Amino acid sequence: MTDIKAITPYERKAFYYETDQMGVIHHSNYIRWFEEARVDFLEKAGFSYKRMEDMGVMIPVLGASCEYKNAVRFSDTVIIVPKIQEFNGFKMTVTYRVIRKEDNLLMAVGETKHCFSNKEMRPIRTKKDYPEIFEVFNSVIGVDFY
Amino acid sequence: MTDIKAITPYERKAFYYETDQMGVIHHSNYIRWFEEARVDFLEKAGFSYKRMEDMGVMIPVLGASCEYKNAVRFSDTVIIVPKIQEFNGFKMTVTYRVIRKEDNLLMAVGETKHCFSNKEMRPIRTKKDYPEIFEVFNSVIGVDFY
Amino acid sequence: MTDIKAITPYERKAFYYETDQMGVIHHSNYIRWFEEARVDFLEKAGFSYKRMEDMGVMIPVLGASCEYKNAVRFSDTVIIVPKIQEFNGFKMTVTYRVIRKEDNLLMAVGETKHCFSNKEMRPIRTKKDYPEIFEVFNSVIGVDFY
Amino acid sequence: MTDIKAITPYERKAFYYETDQMGVIHHSNYIRWFEEARVDFLEKAGFSYKRMEDMGVMIPVLGASCEYKNAVRFSDTVIIVPKIQEFNGFKMTVTYRVIRKEDNLLMAVGETKHCFSNKEMRPIRTKKDYPEIFEVFNSVIGVDFY
Repeated sequence: MTDIKAITPYERKAFYYETDQMGVIHHSNYIRWFEEARVDFLEKAGFSYKRMEDMGVMIPVLGASCEYKNAVRFSDTVIIVPKIQEFNGFKMTVTYRVIRKEDNLLMAVGETKHCFSNKEMRPIRTKKDYPEIFEVFNSVIGVDFY
Repeated sequence: MTDIKAITPYERKAFYYETDQMGVIHHSNYIRWFEEARVDFLEKAGFSYKRMEDMGVMIPVLGASCEYKNAVRFSDTVIIVPKIQEFNGFKMTVTYRVIRKEDNLLMAVGETKHCFSNKEMRPIRTKKDYPEIFEVFNSVIGVDFY
Repeated sequence: MTDIKAITPYERKAFYYETDQMGVIHHSNYIRWFEEARVDFLEKAGFSYKRMEDMGVMIPVLGASCEYKNAVRFSDTVIIVPKIQEFNGFKMTVTYRVIRKEDNLLMAVGETKHCFSNKEMRPIRTKKDYPEIFEVFNSVIGVDFY
Repeated sequence: MTDIKAITPYERKAFYYETDQMGVIHHSNYIRWFEEARVDFLEKAGFSYKRMEDMGVMIPVLGASCEYKNAVRFSDTVIIVPKIQEFNGFKMTVTYRVIRKEDNLLMAVGETKHCFSNKEMRPIRTKKDYPEIFEVFNSVIGVDFY
Protein backbone atom coordinates (compact mmCIF):
# COMPACT_ATOMS: atom_id res chain seq x y z
CA MET A 1 0.00 0.00 0.00
CA THR A 2 1.12 3.49 -0.75
CA ASP A 3 2.27 5.39 2.29
CA ILE A 4 0.94 8.84 1.46
CA LYS A 5 2.70 10.45 4.40
CA ALA A 6 6.07 9.46 2.95
CA ILE A 7 5.42 11.64 -0.07
CA THR A 8 7.21 14.91 0.64
CA PRO A 9 7.58 17.74 -1.89
CA TYR A 10 10.49 17.57 -4.30
CA GLU A 11 13.02 20.34 -3.84
CA ARG A 12 16.19 21.32 -5.66
CA LYS A 13 18.39 24.25 -6.54
CA ALA A 14 18.36 25.89 -9.96
CA PHE A 15 21.71 25.12 -11.59
CA TYR A 16 24.06 27.56 -13.27
CA TYR A 17 24.02 25.67 -16.56
CA GLU A 18 20.24 25.98 -16.61
CA THR A 19 20.43 29.77 -16.96
CA ASP A 20 20.42 31.55 -20.31
CA GLN A 21 21.72 34.93 -21.37
CA MET A 22 18.54 36.64 -20.19
CA GLY A 23 19.90 35.84 -16.72
CA VAL A 24 17.08 33.47 -15.79
CA ILE A 25 16.48 29.73 -15.94
CA HIS A 26 15.75 28.75 -19.53
CA HIS A 27 12.09 27.85 -19.91
CA SER A 28 12.77 24.38 -21.34
CA ASN A 29 14.20 23.22 -18.02
CA TYR A 30 10.87 23.41 -16.26
CA ILE A 31 9.66 20.50 -18.39
CA ARG A 32 12.68 18.55 -17.10
CA TRP A 33 11.96 19.56 -13.53
CA PHE A 34 8.46 18.15 -13.92
CA GLU A 35 10.02 14.83 -14.82
CA GLU A 36 12.37 14.97 -11.84
CA ALA A 37 9.37 15.64 -9.60
CA ARG A 38 7.39 12.76 -11.15
CA VAL A 39 10.26 10.34 -10.66
CA ASP A 40 10.77 11.51 -7.08
CA PHE A 41 7.06 11.22 -6.39
CA LEU A 42 6.86 7.64 -7.62
CA GLU A 43 9.87 6.63 -5.61
CA LYS A 44 8.41 8.13 -2.46
CA ALA A 45 5.07 6.49 -3.27
CA GLY A 46 6.88 3.17 -3.06
CA PHE A 47 7.09 2.20 -6.72
CA SER A 48 10.04 3.73 -8.48
CA TYR A 49 10.06 4.59 -12.15
CA LYS A 50 13.15 2.43 -12.50
CA ARG A 51 11.30 -0.56 -11.03
CA MET A 52 8.46 0.02 -13.50
CA GLU A 53 10.88 0.12 -16.43
CA ASP A 54 12.54 -3.05 -15.12
CA MET A 55 9.07 -4.66 -15.22
CA GLY A 56 8.69 -3.47 -18.80
CA VAL A 57 6.28 -0.62 -18.09
CA MET A 58 6.98 2.78 -19.62
CA ILE A 59 5.06 5.99 -19.01
CA PRO A 60 5.67 8.00 -22.20
CA VAL A 61 4.71 11.65 -22.33
CA LEU A 62 1.87 12.47 -24.74
CA GLY A 63 1.83 16.16 -23.98
CA ALA A 64 3.53 18.72 -21.79
CA SER A 65 2.84 22.36 -21.02
CA CYS A 66 4.08 25.05 -18.74
CA GLU A 67 2.85 28.54 -17.89
CA TYR A 68 5.60 30.82 -16.60
CA LYS A 69 4.63 33.33 -13.92
CA ASN A 70 7.89 34.48 -12.39
CA ALA A 71 11.44 33.88 -13.50
CA VAL A 72 13.43 31.36 -11.47
CA ARG A 73 17.06 32.44 -11.13
CA PHE A 74 20.32 30.66 -10.53
CA SER A 75 20.67 29.27 -7.01
CA ASP A 76 17.00 29.74 -6.16
CA THR A 77 15.64 26.71 -4.38
CA VAL A 78 12.41 25.55 -5.97
CA ILE A 79 9.80 23.12 -4.76
CA ILE A 80 8.07 21.20 -7.53
CA VAL A 81 4.73 19.74 -6.48
CA PRO A 82 3.19 17.13 -8.78
CA LYS A 83 -0.40 16.06 -8.44
CA ILE A 84 -2.06 13.10 -10.17
CA GLN A 85 -4.99 15.00 -11.60
CA GLU A 86 -6.56 12.18 -13.60
CA PHE A 87 -5.82 8.46 -13.82
CA ASN A 88 -7.93 5.66 -15.20
CA GLY A 89 -5.43 2.84 -15.48
CA PHE A 90 -4.17 3.57 -18.97
CA LYS A 91 -4.06 7.34 -19.20
CA MET A 92 -2.88 9.92 -16.69
CA THR A 93 -2.72 13.68 -16.29
CA VAL A 94 -0.26 15.17 -13.83
CA THR A 95 -0.24 18.85 -12.87
CA TYR A 96 2.65 20.72 -11.29
CA ARG A 97 3.35 23.83 -9.31
CA VAL A 98 6.83 25.30 -9.15
CA ILE A 99 7.23 27.29 -5.94
CA ARG A 100 10.21 29.38 -4.84
CA LYS A 101 11.14 28.10 -1.41
CA GLU A 102 12.41 31.37 0.00
CA ASP A 103 9.04 33.13 -0.12
CA ASN A 104 6.58 30.50 -1.33
CA LEU A 105 6.01 32.47 -4.54
CA LEU A 106 4.38 30.53 -7.37
CA MET A 107 6.82 30.58 -10.29
CA ALA A 108 5.07 28.31 -12.77
CA VAL A 109 2.30 25.81 -13.26
CA GLY A 110 2.29 22.95 -15.71
CA GLU A 111 0.82 19.70 -16.87
CA THR A 112 1.92 16.47 -18.50
CA LYS A 113 -0.26 13.82 -20.10
CA HIS A 114 0.81 10.19 -20.23
CA CYS A 115 -0.19 6.73 -21.25
CA PHE A 116 1.22 3.45 -20.02
CA SER A 117 3.01 1.24 -22.51
CA ASN A 118 5.27 -1.76 -22.80
CA LYS A 119 8.81 -1.56 -24.22
CA GLU A 120 7.41 -1.88 -27.72
CA MET A 121 5.33 1.24 -27.09
CA ARG A 122 2.08 -0.75 -27.08
CA PRO A 123 -0.48 0.64 -24.63
CA ILE A 124 -1.15 -1.41 -21.52
CA ARG A 125 -3.96 -1.35 -18.98
CA THR A 126 -2.43 -1.29 -15.57
CA LYS A 127 -5.59 -2.29 -13.69
CA LYS A 128 -5.62 -5.71 -15.29
CA ASP A 129 -1.96 -6.28 -16.13
CA TYR A 130 -0.14 -4.51 -13.32
CA PRO A 131 -2.59 -4.10 -10.40
CA GLU A 132 0.28 -3.13 -8.10
CA ILE A 133 1.13 -0.19 -10.34
CA PHE A 134 -2.52 0.69 -10.75
CA GLU A 135 -2.89 0.87 -7.00
CA VAL A 136 -0.02 3.36 -6.57
CA PHE A 137 -1.50 5.92 -8.91
CA ASN A 138 -5.10 5.25 -7.99
CA SER A 139 -4.43 5.88 -4.32
CA VAL A 140 -3.05 9.37 -4.88
CA ILE A 141 -5.50 10.84 -7.39
CA GLY A 142 -6.15 14.45 -6.54
CA VAL A 143 -3.98 14.41 -3.44
CA ASP A 144 -2.00 17.62 -2.91
CA PHE A 145 1.27 16.94 -1.14
CA TYR A 146 2.19 20.49 -0.28
CA MET B 1 10.08 45.10 -45.59
CA THR B 2 9.97 41.44 -44.78
CA ASP B 3 10.82 39.22 -47.68
CA ILE B 4 8.38 36.39 -47.09
CA LYS B 5 9.88 34.25 -49.83
CA ALA B 6 13.19 34.15 -47.95
CA ILE B 7 11.54 32.32 -45.08
CA THR B 8 12.26 28.65 -45.66
CA PRO B 9 11.41 25.89 -43.17
CA TYR B 10 13.92 25.16 -40.42
CA GLU B 11 15.46 21.73 -40.64
CA ARG B 12 17.93 19.83 -38.49
CA LYS B 13 18.97 16.35 -37.42
CA ALA B 14 18.02 14.89 -34.05
CA PHE B 15 21.22 14.59 -32.02
CA TYR B 16 22.45 11.55 -30.13
CA TYR B 17 22.64 13.42 -26.83
CA GLU B 18 18.98 14.33 -27.23
CA THR B 19 17.91 10.68 -26.93
CA ASP B 20 16.93 9.07 -23.64
CA GLN B 21 16.96 5.47 -22.50
CA MET B 22 13.56 4.86 -24.06
CA GLY B 23 15.50 5.10 -27.35
CA VAL B 24 13.73 8.22 -28.55
CA ILE B 25 14.33 11.97 -28.40
CA HIS B 26 13.54 13.20 -24.91
CA HIS B 27 10.34 15.21 -24.95
CA SER B 28 11.91 18.31 -23.37
CA ASN B 29 14.01 18.89 -26.48
CA TYR B 30 11.01 19.74 -28.63
CA ILE B 31 10.56 22.91 -26.58
CA ARG B 32 14.17 23.78 -27.47
CA TRP B 33 13.58 22.99 -31.13
CA PHE B 34 10.69 25.44 -31.11
CA GLU B 35 13.12 28.12 -29.98
CA GLU B 36 15.61 27.17 -32.68
CA ALA B 37 12.85 27.46 -35.26
CA ARG B 38 11.72 30.84 -33.88
CA VAL B 39 15.24 32.21 -34.01
CA ASP B 40 15.77 30.88 -37.52
CA PHE B 41 12.45 32.31 -38.62
CA LEU B 42 13.26 35.80 -37.36
CA GLU B 43 16.66 35.75 -38.98
CA LYS B 44 15.17 34.73 -42.32
CA ALA B 45 12.46 37.38 -41.87
CA GLY B 46 15.23 39.95 -41.80
CA PHE B 47 15.31 40.86 -38.12
CA SER B 48 17.41 38.50 -36.05
CA TYR B 49 16.72 37.76 -32.43
CA LYS B 50 20.28 38.85 -31.68
CA ARG B 51 19.65 42.22 -33.29
CA MET B 52 16.50 42.63 -31.19
CA GLU B 53 18.40 41.82 -28.01
CA ASP B 54 21.11 44.27 -29.06
CA MET B 55 18.36 46.91 -29.33
CA GLY B 56 17.20 45.97 -25.84
CA VAL B 57 14.12 44.01 -26.88
CA MET B 58 13.51 40.60 -25.34
CA ILE B 59 10.76 38.14 -26.23
CA PRO B 60 10.32 36.11 -23.05
CA VAL B 61 8.24 32.95 -23.08
CA LEU B 62 5.04 33.12 -21.05
CA GLY B 63 3.89 29.63 -21.88
CA ALA B 64 4.94 26.61 -23.89
CA SER B 65 3.24 23.38 -24.80
CA CYS B 66 3.82 20.37 -26.98
CA GLU B 67 1.66 17.46 -28.04
CA TYR B 68 3.67 14.39 -29.05
CA LYS B 69 2.26 12.28 -31.86
CA ASN B 70 5.16 10.13 -33.03
CA ALA B 71 8.57 9.59 -31.49
CA VAL B 72 11.45 11.30 -33.23
CA ARG B 73 14.56 9.12 -33.15
CA PHE B 74 18.28 9.76 -33.34
CA SER B 75 19.46 10.91 -36.78
CA ASP B 76 15.95 11.59 -38.06
CA THR B 77 15.86 14.87 -39.92
CA VAL B 78 13.00 17.02 -38.69
CA ILE B 79 11.45 20.13 -40.16
CA ILE B 80 10.11 22.55 -37.58
CA VAL B 81 7.55 24.98 -38.97
CA PRO B 82 6.68 27.98 -36.82
CA LYS B 83 3.65 30.14 -37.56
CA ILE B 84 2.84 33.51 -35.98
CA GLN B 85 -0.69 32.66 -34.95
CA GLU B 86 -1.50 35.86 -33.09
CA PHE B 87 0.35 39.15 -32.70
CA ASN B 88 -0.92 42.52 -31.52
CA GLY B 89 2.29 44.40 -30.90
CA PHE B 90 2.83 43.39 -27.30
CA LYS B 91 1.71 39.75 -27.14
CA MET B 92 2.32 36.90 -29.55
CA THR B 93 1.33 33.29 -29.99
CA VAL B 94 3.45 31.03 -32.17
CA THR B 95 2.42 27.53 -33.18
CA TYR B 96 4.72 24.81 -34.45
CA ARG B 97 4.62 21.61 -36.41
CA VAL B 98 7.45 19.08 -36.18
CA ILE B 99 7.57 17.03 -39.37
CA ARG B 100 9.84 14.08 -40.17
CA LYS B 101 11.52 14.94 -43.42
CA GLU B 102 11.84 11.41 -44.73
CA ASP B 103 8.10 10.80 -45.06
CA ASN B 104 6.48 14.12 -44.08
CA LEU B 105 4.94 12.48 -40.99
CA LEU B 106 3.69 14.89 -38.34
CA MET B 107 5.63 14.12 -35.16
CA ALA B 108 4.42 16.86 -32.84
CA VAL B 109 2.54 20.13 -32.65
CA GLY B 110 3.16 22.88 -30.15
CA GLU B 111 2.67 26.45 -29.12
CA THR B 112 4.53 29.19 -27.30
CA LYS B 113 3.14 32.44 -25.92
CA HIS B 114 5.29 35.54 -25.60
CA CYS B 115 5.33 39.16 -24.63
CA PHE B 116 7.85 41.80 -25.63
CA SER B 117 9.94 43.38 -22.90
CA ASN B 118 12.99 45.50 -22.30
CA LYS B 119 16.07 44.21 -20.48
CA GLU B 120 14.44 45.01 -17.14
CA MET B 121 11.58 42.72 -18.09
CA ARG B 122 9.17 45.64 -18.43
CA PRO B 123 6.59 45.10 -21.18
CA ILE B 124 6.99 47.18 -24.32
CA ARG B 125 4.61 47.97 -27.16
CA THR B 126 6.44 47.36 -30.39
CA LYS B 127 3.99 49.28 -32.60
CA LYS B 128 4.86 52.56 -30.93
CA ASP B 129 8.40 51.96 -29.67
CA TYR B 130 9.85 49.65 -32.29
CA PRO B 131 7.78 49.97 -35.47
CA GLU B 132 10.43 48.10 -37.45
CA ILE B 133 10.03 45.08 -35.18
CA PHE B 134 6.27 45.43 -35.20
CA GLU B 135 6.31 45.30 -38.98
CA VAL B 136 8.27 42.04 -39.13
CA PHE B 137 5.79 40.12 -37.02
CA ASN B 138 2.73 41.88 -38.34
CA SER B 139 3.58 41.00 -41.92
CA VAL B 140 3.71 37.24 -41.28
CA ILE B 141 0.65 36.68 -39.09
CA GLY B 142 -1.00 33.46 -40.08
CA VAL B 143 1.40 32.75 -42.91
CA ASP B 144 2.32 29.08 -43.27
CA PHE B 145 5.83 28.65 -44.63
CA TYR B 146 5.66 24.97 -45.46
CA MET C 1 36.90 32.34 7.91
CA THR C 2 35.95 29.25 6.01
CA ASP C 3 34.34 26.60 8.15
CA ILE C 4 35.87 23.51 6.59
CA LYS C 5 33.69 21.15 8.62
CA ALA C 6 30.59 22.61 6.95
CA ILE C 7 31.78 21.36 3.59
CA THR C 8 29.98 18.09 3.03
CA PRO C 9 30.09 16.09 -0.22
CA TYR C 10 27.63 17.01 -2.93
CA GLU C 11 25.14 14.29 -3.72
CA ARG C 12 22.32 13.96 -6.23
CA LYS C 13 20.36 11.46 -8.26
CA ALA C 14 21.01 10.87 -11.96
CA PHE C 15 17.95 12.16 -13.82
CA TYR C 16 15.98 10.36 -16.49
CA TYR C 17 16.51 13.12 -19.05
CA GLU C 18 20.25 12.74 -18.57
CA THR C 19 20.21 9.22 -20.03
CA ASP C 20 20.83 8.47 -23.69
CA GLN C 21 19.79 5.58 -25.88
CA MET C 22 22.78 3.55 -24.74
CA GLY C 23 20.84 3.33 -21.45
CA VAL C 24 23.41 5.26 -19.43
CA ILE C 25 23.94 8.87 -18.40
CA HIS C 26 25.23 10.83 -21.38
CA HIS C 27 28.88 11.70 -20.88
CA SER C 28 28.34 15.45 -21.35
CA ASN C 29 26.37 15.64 -18.12
CA TYR C 30 29.38 14.86 -15.95
CA ILE C 31 30.84 18.24 -16.93
CA ARG C 32 27.61 19.80 -15.68
CA TRP C 33 27.76 17.80 -12.46
CA PHE C 34 31.24 19.17 -11.85
CA GLU C 35 29.77 22.65 -11.99
CA GLU C 36 26.96 21.71 -9.60
CA ALA C 37 29.57 20.37 -7.19
CA ARG C 38 31.70 23.51 -7.51
CA VAL C 39 28.74 25.75 -6.82
CA ASP C 40 27.68 23.63 -3.87
CA PHE C 41 31.21 23.61 -2.52
CA LEU C 42 31.52 27.39 -2.62
CA GLU C 43 28.19 27.84 -0.93
CA LYS C 44 29.16 25.46 1.87
CA ALA C 45 32.55 27.20 2.10
CA GLY C 46 30.65 30.35 2.97
CA PHE C 47 31.02 32.34 -0.24
CA SER C 48 28.44 31.45 -2.82
CA TYR C 49 29.03 31.71 -6.54
CA LYS C 50 25.99 33.95 -6.74
CA ARG C 51 27.50 36.33 -4.19
CA MET C 52 30.71 36.42 -6.21
CA GLU C 53 28.81 37.23 -9.40
CA ASP C 54 26.89 39.93 -7.53
CA MET C 55 30.30 41.42 -6.59
CA GLY C 56 31.28 41.29 -10.25
CA VAL C 57 33.59 38.29 -10.00
CA MET C 58 33.26 35.49 -12.54
CA ILE C 59 35.12 32.19 -12.59
CA PRO C 60 35.09 31.20 -16.26
CA VAL C 61 36.16 27.72 -17.30
CA LEU C 62 39.37 27.57 -19.33
CA GLY C 63 39.39 23.81 -19.67
CA ALA C 64 37.41 20.76 -18.63
CA SER C 65 38.04 17.06 -18.84
CA CYS C 66 36.50 13.83 -17.66
CA GLU C 67 37.66 10.24 -17.66
CA TYR C 68 34.79 7.76 -17.55
CA LYS C 69 35.38 4.55 -15.58
CA ASN C 70 31.93 3.10 -14.99
CA ALA C 71 28.59 4.07 -16.46
CA VAL C 72 26.25 5.94 -14.14
CA ARG C 73 22.64 4.91 -14.74
CA PHE C 74 19.28 6.52 -14.20
CA SER C 75 18.32 6.84 -10.52
CA ASP C 76 21.83 6.04 -9.25
CA THR C 77 22.78 8.42 -6.48
CA VAL C 78 26.20 9.89 -7.12
CA ILE C 79 28.52 11.82 -4.84
CA ILE C 80 30.64 14.41 -6.62
CA VAL C 81 33.73 15.41 -4.66
CA PRO C 82 35.54 18.55 -5.83
CA LYS C 83 39.02 19.38 -4.61
CA ILE C 84 40.87 22.68 -5.11
CA GLN C 85 44.04 21.19 -6.53
CA GLU C 86 45.84 24.43 -7.35
CA PHE C 87 45.06 28.06 -6.62
CA ASN C 88 47.30 31.11 -6.76
CA GLY C 89 44.83 33.94 -6.63
CA PHE C 90 44.19 34.29 -10.33
CA LYS C 91 44.18 30.73 -11.66
CA MET C 92 42.67 27.57 -10.23
CA THR C 93 42.53 23.87 -10.96
CA VAL C 94 39.73 21.80 -9.47
CA THR C 95 39.65 17.99 -9.63
CA TYR C 96 36.59 15.82 -9.15
CA ARG C 97 35.65 12.29 -8.29
CA VAL C 98 32.22 10.91 -9.14
CA ILE C 99 31.34 8.10 -6.74
CA ARG C 100 28.28 5.86 -6.79
CA LYS C 101 26.77 6.13 -3.34
CA GLU C 102 25.37 2.62 -3.15
CA ASP C 103 28.75 0.89 -3.21
CA ASN C 104 31.31 3.70 -3.21
CA LEU C 105 32.44 2.71 -6.72
CA LEU C 106 34.48 5.35 -8.55
CA MET C 107 32.54 6.20 -11.72
CA ALA C 108 34.62 9.04 -13.14
CA VAL C 109 37.38 11.51 -12.41
CA GLY C 110 37.72 14.94 -13.90
CA GLU C 111 39.28 18.35 -13.81
CA THR C 112 38.39 21.93 -14.61
CA LYS C 113 40.74 24.89 -15.00
CA HIS C 114 39.63 28.43 -14.25
CA CYS C 115 40.69 32.01 -14.05
CA PHE C 116 39.01 34.84 -12.17
CA SER C 117 37.60 37.71 -14.17
CA ASN C 118 35.34 40.72 -13.95
CA LYS C 119 32.10 41.01 -15.93
CA GLU C 120 34.05 42.30 -18.93
CA MET C 121 36.05 39.07 -18.87
CA ARG C 122 39.22 40.93 -17.78
CA PRO C 123 41.38 38.82 -15.44
CA ILE C 124 41.49 39.86 -11.80
CA ARG C 125 43.86 39.01 -8.95
CA THR C 126 41.77 37.98 -6.00
CA LYS C 127 44.56 38.35 -3.42
CA LYS C 128 44.79 42.07 -3.94
CA ASP C 129 41.29 42.95 -5.18
CA TYR C 130 39.08 40.48 -3.32
CA PRO C 131 41.02 39.19 -0.30
CA GLU C 132 37.85 37.66 1.13
CA ILE C 133 37.43 35.51 -1.97
CA PHE C 134 41.14 34.71 -2.01
CA GLU C 135 40.88 33.44 1.54
CA VAL C 136 38.04 31.02 0.77
CA PHE C 137 39.94 29.20 -1.96
CA ASN C 138 43.32 29.48 -0.30
CA SER C 139 42.08 27.84 2.87
CA VAL C 140 40.88 24.69 1.11
CA ILE C 141 43.74 23.95 -1.28
CA GLY C 142 44.32 20.24 -1.41
CA VAL C 143 41.68 19.43 1.17
CA ASP C 144 39.73 16.27 0.42
CA PHE C 145 36.19 16.50 1.73
CA TYR C 146 35.23 12.87 1.39
CA MET D 1 35.46 2.52 -49.72
CA THR D 2 35.35 5.79 -47.91
CA ASP D 3 34.95 8.79 -50.15
CA ILE D 4 37.19 11.25 -48.36
CA LYS D 5 36.12 14.12 -50.59
CA ALA D 6 32.55 13.78 -49.35
CA ILE D 7 33.66 14.65 -45.83
CA THR D 8 32.95 18.35 -45.43
CA PRO D 9 33.31 20.26 -42.15
CA TYR D 10 30.38 20.22 -39.76
CA GLU D 11 28.80 23.60 -39.25
CA ARG D 12 25.96 24.87 -37.06
CA LYS D 13 24.69 27.91 -35.23
CA ALA D 14 25.04 28.32 -31.47
CA PHE D 15 21.55 28.10 -30.00
CA TYR D 16 19.95 30.49 -27.54
CA TYR D 17 19.26 27.76 -24.99
CA GLU D 18 22.96 26.92 -25.03
CA THR D 19 23.88 30.29 -23.52
CA ASP D 20 24.27 30.88 -19.80
CA GLN D 21 23.96 33.99 -17.69
CA MET D 22 27.55 34.95 -18.43
CA GLY D 23 26.19 35.70 -21.92
CA VAL D 24 28.22 33.01 -23.66
CA ILE D 25 27.68 29.40 -24.70
CA HIS D 26 27.92 27.21 -21.63
CA HIS D 27 31.13 25.19 -21.71
CA SER D 28 29.39 21.82 -21.38
CA ASN D 29 27.85 22.21 -24.80
CA TYR D 30 31.17 21.94 -26.60
CA ILE D 31 31.36 18.31 -25.52
CA ARG D 32 27.97 17.82 -27.18
CA TRP D 33 29.12 19.61 -30.32
CA PHE D 34 32.05 17.19 -30.53
CA GLU D 35 29.53 14.37 -30.64
CA GLU D 36 27.48 16.10 -33.32
CA ALA D 37 30.63 16.51 -35.38
CA ARG D 38 31.61 12.85 -34.87
CA VAL D 39 28.18 11.66 -35.95
CA ASP D 40 28.20 13.96 -38.96
CA PHE D 41 31.70 12.82 -39.89
CA LEU D 42 30.77 9.13 -39.82
CA GLU D 43 27.69 9.73 -41.91
CA LYS D 44 29.69 11.62 -44.51
CA ALA D 45 32.35 8.91 -44.40
CA GLY D 46 29.66 6.50 -45.53
CA PHE D 47 29.01 4.55 -42.35
CA SER D 48 26.56 6.28 -40.06
CA TYR D 49 26.62 5.92 -36.30
CA LYS D 50 23.01 4.77 -36.50
CA ARG D 51 23.96 1.98 -38.89
CA MET D 52 26.73 0.91 -36.52
CA GLU D 53 24.31 0.81 -33.59
CA ASP D 54 21.86 -1.16 -35.72
CA MET D 55 24.69 -3.69 -36.29
CA GLY D 56 25.23 -3.80 -32.54
CA VAL D 57 28.39 -1.71 -32.45
CA MET D 58 28.66 1.10 -29.92
CA ILE D 59 31.47 3.65 -29.60
CA PRO D 60 31.32 4.66 -25.93
CA VAL D 61 33.31 7.64 -24.71
CA LEU D 62 36.14 6.80 -22.31
CA GLY D 63 37.31 10.37 -21.90
CA ALA D 64 36.54 13.86 -23.10
CA SER D 65 38.29 17.17 -22.76
CA CYS D 66 38.01 20.69 -24.04
CA GLU D 67 40.25 23.74 -23.85
CA TYR D 68 38.35 27.01 -24.26
CA LYS D 69 40.15 29.81 -26.07
CA ASN D 70 37.44 32.27 -27.03
CA ALA D 71 33.82 32.42 -25.98
CA VAL D 72 31.29 31.37 -28.59
CA ARG D 73 28.17 33.50 -28.40
CA PHE D 74 24.55 33.04 -29.37
CA SER D 75 23.98 32.96 -33.12
CA ASP D 76 27.66 32.58 -33.98
CA THR D 77 28.14 29.97 -36.66
CA VAL D 78 30.79 27.49 -35.65
CA ILE D 79 32.63 24.89 -37.67
CA ILE D 80 33.60 21.80 -35.71
CA VAL D 81 36.41 19.81 -37.31
CA PRO D 82 36.99 16.30 -35.98
CA LYS D 83 40.15 14.37 -36.81
CA ILE D 84 40.76 10.67 -36.16
CA GLN D 85 44.05 11.11 -34.35
CA GLU D 86 44.63 7.47 -33.39
CA PHE D 87 42.83 4.26 -34.27
CA ASN D 88 43.96 0.66 -33.93
CA GLY D 89 40.72 -1.23 -34.41
CA PHE D 90 39.58 -1.27 -30.80
CA LYS D 91 40.55 2.13 -29.41
CA MET D 92 40.30 5.56 -30.97
CA THR D 93 41.27 9.14 -30.19
CA VAL D 94 39.47 11.96 -31.94
CA THR D 95 40.58 15.59 -31.73
CA TYR D 96 38.46 18.61 -32.52
CA ARG D 97 38.79 22.24 -33.42
CA VAL D 98 35.91 24.66 -32.96
CA ILE D 99 36.26 27.55 -35.38
CA ARG D 100 34.09 30.65 -35.66
CA LYS D 101 32.98 30.80 -39.26
CA GLU D 102 32.80 34.58 -39.53
CA ASP D 103 36.53 35.15 -39.06
CA ASN D 104 38.03 31.68 -38.82
CA LEU D 105 39.01 32.30 -35.19
CA LEU D 106 39.87 29.20 -33.17
CA MET D 107 37.42 29.07 -30.27
CA ALA D 108 38.30 25.74 -28.67
CA VAL D 109 40.20 22.52 -29.11
CA GLY D 110 39.24 19.18 -27.66
CA GLU D 111 39.64 15.45 -27.63
CA THR D 112 37.56 12.35 -27.01
CA LYS D 113 38.78 8.81 -26.41
CA HIS D 114 36.70 5.80 -27.35
CA CYS D 115 36.58 2.06 -27.48
CA PHE D 116 34.32 -0.10 -29.60
CA SER D 117 31.84 -2.34 -27.82
CA ASN D 118 28.79 -4.48 -28.37
CA LYS D 119 25.41 -3.67 -26.79
CA GLU D 120 26.49 -5.45 -23.60
CA MET D 121 29.41 -3.02 -23.36
CA ARG D 122 31.92 -5.81 -24.12
CA PRO D 123 34.91 -4.57 -26.14
CA ILE D 124 35.09 -5.66 -29.77
CA ARG D 125 37.92 -5.67 -32.29
CA THR D 126 36.64 -4.10 -35.46
CA LYS D 127 39.45 -5.37 -37.70
CA LYS D 128 38.41 -8.97 -37.23
CA ASP D 129 34.70 -8.66 -36.43
CA TYR D 130 33.63 -5.66 -38.48
CA PRO D 131 36.22 -5.12 -41.23
CA GLU D 132 33.89 -2.68 -42.99
CA ILE D 133 33.82 -0.46 -39.92
CA PHE D 134 37.55 -0.88 -39.43
CA GLU D 135 38.13 0.33 -42.96
CA VAL D 136 36.15 3.55 -42.48
CA PHE D 137 38.18 4.73 -39.52
CA ASN D 138 41.47 3.34 -40.78
CA SER D 139 41.20 5.24 -44.05
CA VAL D 140 40.87 8.63 -42.37
CA ILE D 141 43.52 8.47 -39.65
CA GLY D 142 45.22 11.81 -39.38
CA VAL D 143 43.31 13.36 -42.24
CA ASP D 144 42.38 16.99 -41.65
CA PHE D 145 39.13 17.89 -43.39
CA TYR D 146 39.35 21.63 -43.08
